[in-house]
Amino acid sequence: MTMRHPQLRSDGELQHLLTIEGLPRDLIHRILDTAESFVGVSDREVKKVPLLRGKSVFNLFFENSTRTRTTFEIAAKRLSADVVNLNINTSSTSKGESLLDTVDNLSAMHADMFVVRHAQSGAPFLIAEHLNRIRGNEVHVVNAGDGRHAHPTQGLLDMYTIRHHKKDFTSLRVAIVGDILHSRVARSDIHALTTLGVPELRAIGPRTLMPGGLEQMGVHVYTDMREGLRDVDVVIMLRLQNERMRGALLPSAQEYFKHYGLTREKLALARPDAIVMHPGPMNRGVEIESAVADSAQAVILQQVTFGIAVRMAVMSMLGAQ
Amino acid sequence: MTMRHPQLRSDGELQHLLTIEGLPRDLIHRILDTAESFVGVSDREVKKVPLLRGKSVFNLFFENSTRTRTTFEIAAKRLSADVVNLNINTSSTSKGESLLDTVDNLSAMHADMFVVRHAQSGAPFLIAEHLNRIRGNEVHVVNAGDGRHAHPTQGLLDMYTIRHHKKDFTSLRVAIVGDILHSRVARSDIHALTTLGVPELRAIGPRTLMPGGLEQMGVHVYTDMREGLRDVDVVIMLRLQNERMRGALLPSAQEYFKHYGLTREKLALARPDAIVMHPGPMNRGVEIESAVADSAQAVILQQVTFGIAVRMAVMSMLGAQ
Amino acid sequence: MTMRHPQLRSDGELQHLLTIEGLPRDLIHRILDTAESFVGVSDREVKKVPLLRGKSVFNLFFENSTRTRTTFEIAAKRLSADVVNLNINTSSTSKGESLLDTVDNLSAMHADMFVVRHAQSGAPFLIAEHLNRIRGNEVHVVNAGDGRHAHPTQGLLDMYTIRHHKKDFTSLRVAIVGDILHSRVARSDIHALTTLGVPELRAIGPRTLMPGGLEQMGVHVYTDMREGLRDVDVVIMLRLQNERMRGALLPSAQEYFKHYGLTREKLALARPDAIVMHPGPMNRGVEIESAVADSAQAVILQQVTFGIAVRMAVMSMLGAQ
Repeated sequence: MTMRHPQLRSDGELQHLLTIEGLPRDLIHRILDTAESFVGVSDREVKKVPLLRGKSVFNLFFENSTRTRTTFEIAAKRLSADVVNLNINTSSTSKGESLLDTVDNLSAMHADMFVVRHAQSGAPFLIAEHLNRIRGNEVHVVNAGDGRHAHPTQGLLDMYTIRHHKKDFTSLRVAIVGDILHSRVARSDIHALTTLGVPELRAIGPRTLMPGGLEQMGVHVYTDMREGLRDVDVVIMLRLQNERMRGALLPSAQEYFKHYGLTREKLALARPDAIVMHPGPMNRGVEIESAVADSAQAVILQQVTFGIAVRMAVMSMLGAQ
Repeated sequence: MTMRHPQLRSDGELQHLLTIEGLPRDLIHRILDTAESFVGVSDREVKKVPLLRGKSVFNLFFENSTRTRTTFEIAAKRLSADVVNLNINTSSTSKGESLLDTVDNLSAMHADMFVVRHAQSGAPFLIAEHLNRIRGNEVHVVNAGDGRHAHPTQGLLDMYTIRHHKKDFTSLRVAIVGDILHSRVARSDIHALTTLGVPELRAIGPRTLMPGGLEQMGVHVYTDMREGLRDVDVVIMLRLQNERMRGALLPSAQEYFKHYGLTREKLALARPDAIVMHPGPMNRGVEIESAVADSAQAVILQQVTFGIAVRMAVMSMLGAQ
Repeated sequence: MTMRHPQLRSDGELQHLLTIEGLPRDLIHRILDTAESFVGVSDREVKKVPLLRGKSVFNLFFENSTRTRTTFEIAAKRLSADVVNLNINTSSTSKGESLLDTVDNLSAMHADMFVVRHAQSGAPFLIAEHLNRIRGNEVHVVNAGDGRHAHPTQGLLDMYTIRHHKKDFTSLRVAIVGDILHSRVARSDIHALTTLGVPELRAIGPRTLMPGGLEQMGVHVYTDMREGLRDVDVVIMLRLQNERMRGALLPSAQEYFKHYGLTREKLALARPDAIVMHPGPMNRGVEIESAVADSAQAVILQQVTFGIAVRMAVMSMLGAQ
């Protein structure tokens, strides 16, 4: 017996985008292909397409993130949607209203799409199931990052960036470096890379920041960064999320940089045409050396640009239904 | 000698919407009729109408309310207006500028409409009189809630909801339950229901939360909820506004729920087809039992949906002038 | 050897607007002429022109200013641009990201224009130079106030207001009164007035609030307000920026008002047709008497209205390139 994931409809199309886990490979490629058609839009004189004209997109951020909220806002406006930004820390919830009451209310204002960011893993999932129940296929949810769980649009833009530079996933060595344990980006990337057929996937970081179960997912774990970087085609650096760590999982930032900071010298162990990625915002001098961040191998700002196109793709694919 | 209310023009049309008190019955019905024409707009593929295209609407919130601000923002955007949101707690006023200087400044930016929320009763009234004086009929004010005084769009959306379900006001028994004393919603509803000809209007709540003068307005006061609910057609629950109460007007929330919380058992005393309303956000388990809030008799989310249409109606009627 | 200012392109056109210092006189007049063509737009039924349709304008406010941000937001929306508001206090920068990394990121989202407010003098300059380097002529910066340095759109709207009332600059006596030392408005006005050929420019205020070097710029310094106001055509009052002053540069507000507050009695010393300006928000009873602020000689609200047109002019001239 299989249980259908709430993000897929019975015809296999996306109803919500909650996680990359379980997305079929061809669906991921279809999203990336759609994004490709939007990359040009940002270079045009008039950057708008009317695909979501008259639709209402609610940026529902229970956790503050100006950067991510902005990328979704821009993507939605380029699709001609009406965008309402809601930072819900102080408002309704502080008045004691529950998450689903808040969603019910906004949904009663005829929202067409919710972009949800929440510190609790699973919150967007809960919202999507609830909306499926009360509104059928009408309303769509995009997970913009939930706790340690998933950040699917970041995962997809990372895939877009890799495909753009490397064309084929099926012969790549990819290393993800840093705080894997607390990273929803790492989790989303691992699911995407696995689905897209990357044959060698490595996780590099201190044991204390490495979740259990990676080996079972086919990920090779390295605690020695030099070993882990050898001959890789893609290096995905993670942000050292100080605010997420509790207690003494780590020595000092200097110590961290010494062992797991990406320097030119360490990067030289990777393939000469290896690309360096980072979800931003970077801690220069902590997880990455400035000279690497600003080098020709870094594609970090391209990730941002592609991120707009990927979000336009996801929102238009959901909203067109 | 009669003094004209600043919200009505000499031809009897609305210049501002400040309070329901004194609005003629046919004008209220005209607003509800206009709202009815907008209810369909939210269901259309493209939810926009161009009635306020090129008009500037300023959401001027001196008191934070994400929910109310959002409903006005959506209503204005569906009318194709440009919307500017201003939360004025920290900005100009903290720099020592007076309320009317702030309004003068924004007015000098060619605002067409102000949606004003203020903790002080009468603030929107003051602004409207000032704008009448300096800008004639050009600029419009909508009161989005002022102190304990009025919340006219909430009152109108409540009337819309009642009319939608009960058709005729002139044979209804309506009960308003809870913190009548501090509630601008109660005040607006009482004026509206009275004007629309409701023959039996009841206020239910503890003596400490009951304002003086209700009986003179023709409202029957009940401190026993069971008595008050008997045979009513409409139950309007109020939010228990903890933040508004000072001192010890009330025992505990549990005690309050026991006496004035709406349970299935108490609701059974009302007419079997009675509808249950609440302005939101609800305190489940304080003023209303979850089973009632989620029952078929509750029309609480419909109120939200109708609220968008009612605000579109008010804004388009003002802005079209 | 001359070094070209980063705000001017090799053909002499504006690439950015960072400061009025060094702008050629004819370019200033061209901006004011363009603004004149937009003054009418605000009076039209539909207040929009499509000059920046599909362009993305980022209001990048590192220092909170609802009022200034709103004027730019309105100006951009009237030009049909998409506007994204970013108040960056708590977000990326609190995550330890550098100013230029933030700009790089937003720039990678294909921003067309940044409106920058920053507490540090020179920040918009730094951003503009950086964007010239990495994006060539593609992206434009408007300085919306940087530290004590410059507030060029305020300076330009002041010039617009003076030109509107006095037609010709070359026979005027202009007095600037107050906290010259901490005022970016004063600095921008002095550069503009000098460039436009005002023959007699006076600075009035206490010695402690007077910067060095004014005399060398041809500005006459007065510590006696009555002397300084004699026969002037234009009085530019400055806001007493309490928050900017450290230590005991000033006695009490009452004492300040006595010496440097603009009263009817002091204003009578100026020419009978003198106009009174103020950048707002005013401290009534501190730097200006209410009776003067509300008199026919005050053009303070006109400044606000003209300010929208001037910002539309600047943004359209930059964005059209």
